[in-house]
Order: sequence, then structure tokens, then C-alpha cells
Amino acid sequence: MSTLEQTGRSRLRRVRERGHYDRETIYGVLDAGPLCHVGYIVDGAPMVTPTLQWREGDRVYWHGSSASRMLRQAEGAQVCLSVSHLDGMVVARSAFHHSVNFRSLMLFGRAEKVADPARATAHLKNFIDGLFPGRWDTLRPMNDKELKATTVLSMPIEEGAAKIRTGPPVDDEEDYALPIWAGVLPINQVLGSPVPCPRLDPAIPLPRDVLDFKLG
Amino acid sequence: MSTLEQTGRSRLRRVRERGHYDRETIYGVLDAGPLCHVGYIVDGAPMVTPTLQWREGDRVYWHGSSASRMLRQAEGAQVCLSVSHLDGMVVARSAFHHSVNFRSLMLFGRAEKVADPARATAHLKNFIDGLFPGRWDTLRPMNDKELKATTVLSMPIEEGAAKIRTGPPVDDEEDYALPIWAGVLPINQVLGSPVPCPRLDPAIPLPRDVLDFKLG
Repeated sequence: MSTLEQTGRSRLRRVRERGHYDRETIYGVLDAGPLCHVGYIVDGAPMVTPTLQWREGDRVYWHGSSASRMLRQAEGAQVCLSVSHLDGMVVARSAFHHSVNFRSLMLFGRAEKVADPARATAHLKNFIDGLFPGRWDTLRPMNDKELKATTVLSMPIEEGAAKIRTGPPVDDEEDYALPIWAGVLPINQVLGSPVPCPRLDPAIPLPRDVLDFKLG
Repeated sequence: MSTLEQTGRSRLRRVRERGHYDRETIYGVLDAGPLCHVGYIVDGAPMVTPTLQWREGDRVYWHGSSASRMLRQAEGAQVCLSVSHLDGMVVARSAFHHSVNFRSLMLFGRAEKVADPARATAHLKNFIDGLFPGRWDTLRPMNDKELKATTVLSMPIEEGAAKIRTGPPVDDEEDYALPIWAGVLPINQVLGSPVPCPRLDPAIPLPRDVLDFKLG
């Protein structure tokens, strides 16, 4: 049962231009879906929180409530940002060779707070427009209270590794002859039809920015 | 932009019989999908690794390679196990109220290694059979080398919190009248058709255990 856990061996590897650590692969995993898990140390213990990430060039961004004790402790501290897309269950002829197909990524670095309000606003615009292209300018503008309540963090994409598994099970050579079904159960994330807010005026059409939302 | 990150405020809460920390809710999030992210402290820095979890009663289990330095450091150490299911994008009338629908869970505790080989094997059987009911007994049996290469960890489900968001956006009262589309884009994980191993004898039918695999 070789699992995604082995990604951990790659800690301290620098992002390279080629191989498992190449930027193109890492950017592809980040851009394939916004959900990430960020690991902090809070009061000496690990804490792993789900949030949404977005990439701007060679940096990754995430945000949270300014009231969060965790986020305040994260400023300037070492964090690990992990993104995982589960693509399938790999069903083998022995328990040991069962696995999963996946694309995953661990990034290490120090979280930096975007302190300047104008810059923070610009990054939040990139976040919204990255998900829903062009939506920001159609929205009720962000106010100072909301901006103060929001902390934007980022780190450079410098240290980490992507790991990708695709394809059929890899069994022990002598096991291939056994009369046991083996293969892959693909898993996909799909979008359902948009559900309008119950308080939406039915005359308001579904905008392009929402239709343009994509997973992966 | 209220996000999943706020789950972190719930650290140090004991699992209760009711409310956000009730066992039924927590078990439901664990049982809805095997992917989890486990946070360790390795050489003083946080490390977040994706792996698969399974539940047996009031304990959660995961496994990994015995060769993993991270897993060896995890034994007896404080860890955080996080499970997140992304159910939809919540599209609001202001950037701030954009959100996601999700079911998430953070569990805190000390990772305990299952040292006894017979017990470890029994737990791995539960893992396989939990995914593919009845499959374990159809497989080439696990051998000692494979068992030695596999470390099974667990912790009691005692400290943590589930957090669930469902439903439409919650906008500022005065924003509902704005001519801006708002609603939810549902996200679902779906299974594709099983893909047989290229080396599979076509006479071997798809077994019940693989057909019975369910997400959620």
C-alpha cells in the first residue's frame, strides 16, 4: 500500500526546472483546484487547516480571518502548504500494491503577510477573478472593515515537490497470473448546475464569470 | 471571504455527543471519503502529507512506509489529521461573502503505532475491506516483508471539531437588492467506469467488491 505519504521524503528539495520538482508540474497541481491544506505550528502542536489557495506567478497566496490566532502565529513562521487531487483508486492483486492515482504537492516556506491594504486588495481581486474571470468589478466594492478583517498570506514557490501517480496497478511479476481483477476506478470532480440564491431576482441572468469557473 | 480556515479556532475542543463536535457528524465526515492530510512536526517544521484514513469505531487509522522518517518521528507525537470535502463554490454579491460549501474535520492527538504484526494485519484488512467489501480474502496474502514495510498508526477520536457549511450565500442585507447574480456552484466527486489493468485476463469479471466501492 504505497501511499501519497511518501511525498514527505522530498522535503528540503529545491524546486527545479525539470523532474519531480519542476515549476510546470508544480504550477499545474496548484492551478488544478483551489483547495489546499496549510500546516502551522500553534502552541507547539501541528495544525492543518483547509483553505483556498491561488497562484500569482512564482508565489502562492491564501487568506483568512485577521481574528484567527493561528493566522497571526503563521506570520513569518515556517508553514507547509499541501494540495492533493485524488484521481482514482488503484486496485491490485495484493493488498500491498493497492494505491491511488493522484497529483499532490507540498510547498515549504515562511508565510509573509501582505501588509499594504492596496496590495492586499489587488491580490484578493486576483483570487476572485482567478476563480470567476472578471467578477470582481461586478461586485459591491470591498470596504475597509472587510479588508481589515481579512489577512492575505503568501510565500514563494521555492522549496517543495510535486508527486504524481497515474496508470494501472504495478503488481509483483508472479501475481499477474492470479485470477484476481485489477485495475483503476477513476475519480473525477465535476460541477453541478448552478443553484441561484433563493433571494435572487429571477430576471438576473447567470453571468459569464460564473459559467467560466473551472476545476482543473 | 469567510473560509474553512476558521475551523482552527476549534482546537482544544473535546468531541461531544452533540453540536459541532458530535461523534455522528465527525464520523460522517471521516466516512465520506478516505483522503486526509496529516500534519506532523519534522525537524521543528510543519509537514502536511496526504494519505488515506479509515475509521474503526472511535479510532482513526492511517498507514505509510516504515522507511519514512516522518512516520517514525510521528510515533507518539502530537499530530493533526484533517479531512475536507469541497461541496460547492458559494458566489455572493460582495467579494467578502464569497465562500465554499464543505464538510471538514480536524482531529488532534498522539499517533500510536500498531506494533503487533497480527493486529496491524487485521487493521489493514479492515482498511481494504472498508473500501472494497470482502476484497481482502480474494487477494494474494500479505507476506512478512510487506508487513514489515508498512506502519499502521492510529489515534482516538477525542479532540477535534467538524465544520460544515451548506446552503446559499449570506450577503449583507442591503446587498440583496443589487443586480448581481449569486448562488452556489455544486461540486461533486464521481466515479468513472472501472479501467481494467492492461495485463488482466479479459475472462476475469469485475468483482462485487470493486463495484461496491463508494465515495461518501
